Amino acid sequence: MHDHSDSNEGGGGGKSPQAPDPQDQNIENALSKIKHKLIVMSGKGGVGKSSFATNLAVALAAKGFSTGLMDVDLHGPSIAGMVGINGLLEVSQETQQVVPKKVNENLKVVSMQSLMKDPDQAVIWRGPAKTGIIRQFIGDVFWDALDFLIVDSPPGTGDEPLSVAQTITGAKALIVTTPQDVALADVRKSINFCRAVNLELVGLVENMGPFACPCCGKTVELFKSQGGRLTAEAMGVTFLGTLPFDPEVVKSCDQGAPIAAAGQSGPFVAALETVVQAVIGRL
Amino acid sequence: MHDHSDSNEGGGGGKSPQAPDPQDQNIENALSKIKHKLIVMSGKGGVGKSSFATNLAVALAAKGFSTGLMDVDLHGPSIAGMVGINGLLEVSQETQQVVPKKVNENLKVVSMQSLMKDPDQAVIWRGPAKTGIIRQFIGDVFWDALDFLIVDSPPGTGDEPLSVAQTITGAKALIVTTPQDVALADVRKSINFCRAVNLELVGLVENMGPFACPCCGKTVELFKSQGGRLTAEAMGVTFLGTLPFDPEVVKSCDQGAPIAAAGQSGPFVAALETVVQAVIGRL
Repeated sequence: MHDHSDSNEGGGGGKSPQAPDPQDQNIENALSKIKHKLIVMSGKGGVGKSSFATNLAVALAAKGFSTGLMDVDLHGPSIAGMVGINGLLEVSQETQQVVPKKVNENLKVVSMQSLMKDPDQAVIWRGPAKTGIIRQFIGDVFWDALDFLIVDSPPGTGDEPLSVAQTITGAKALIVTTPQDVALADVRKSINFCRAVNLELVGLVENMGPFACPCCGKTVELFKSQGGRLTAEAMGVTFLGTLPFDPEVVKSCDQGAPIAAAGQSGPFVAALETVVQAVIGRL
Repeated sequence: MHDHSDSNEGGGGGKSPQAPDPQDQNIENALSKIKHKLIVMSGKGGVGKSSFATNLAVALAAKGFSTGLMDVDLHGPSIAGMVGINGLLEVSQETQQVVPKKVNENLKVVSMQSLMKDPDQAVIWRGPAKTGIIRQFIGDVFWDALDFLIVDSPPGTGDEPLSVAQTITGAKALIVTTPQDVALADVRKSINFCRAVNLELVGLVENMGPFACPCCGKTVELFKSQGGRLTAEAMGVTFLGTLPFDPEVVKSCDQGAPIAAAGQSGPFVAALETVVQAVIGRL
């Protein structure tokens, strides 16, 4: 799993046409049976990108779609814990490929976390090494036929999301933000990033919206309001909806039992359903 | 400003002893008159790292310390807006160095944002280019004698915080987190990162702690509680204190008027004062 030789570095250097890359073929094979590939991005960390990616995948699986969830965040991979899986990934004896873990009948998960023996170890790799690892990881996972693959991408507009976007051909992007100005400045960068790398944008989701005090019921705007919608409109991007802030979403993800699991209800789940319908409608 | 030739890449390659690097000398000169250099880090984005770095710098300046605030976050630089400065940075005719912007008598600020003509443009650079830019940026800023330089580092444990840690010799680190498990997994990585690169750790700050409903006054734990303190204890790191969640902190940063400015009061400012005293006491 650690051959970094093909780091695809140098921006424009590229491979000569007479030397086809076996890894390109691996990646194509690995992703060939997937109908819709969605990359969940954010310009800024901590907007709930991983939590949204997880709840989106769980909600799609609950609707009967065959769904894969892949965590490609090298520096803060958290998906494994959010869906309650742990332990190292298995490698198929037959194909030498990584086998995703089955969470339920319709949901399989693979996480870079599962490749690390000590989950607390910092991953200190330079750009080119990370690009190689990301390409290798994506090409080394064996996915059965899937309706959806949800990819939790590293935040920002640097090497890692760039590698993910360039490796998963035919993918479309979802951008997650919170409503406050500081996050929105980064969202505009993310939208420009998608346009620069020709990544089709499904739309923008506003997370950590209004919070209803569990005691008095009054709504508080923790991170201001409306910023996501206004930014989407200003940038000509589809606005997919606002998800309310709910401490239960934080807790349920920490506990490995995402709130969007079948049979759940409440304002967050209802808002998520609107977003999921908007996503499906745009594909 | 865009000579990327010295990217210091390759992990172990390094420069030959007979070829001293003029940029090393620039960096040493630029930082030579600074008493305490503090790098504010987080394993995860969105924990309020930039907001804390800004409020820490503003609070130190309000105490009469000569303070510099430097934003080295290439992908989501936000410090400039948080202290209400805008426009491009000036370059001294005499020394050809970047001149930090004066916010008040004791506070000067320099931000990578101020080097970009279009603040919404995504910065899509590969690792080696970023390392060069970060080193060049740090070496090109002219700082007068300072008591404190607060450096807002990019999140995570990748190229960018690594470049910052390696470039600013003699710096010490502050780690910011929120109380929930998902953030704490990343904090353990950050602590291990500091240890791996021999960066002395001042301590851990827990941000986005208890929230008091402005209507009924009841306290809600938005992102759980106590996680920062327990992690600090478990990892043998000093716990510097908990800052409450306050939507005014979000708003005031968005408006470019940080809440820690002289004359302010309230639970957030009081908690920040405790943290500032703990930081000063540890230096």
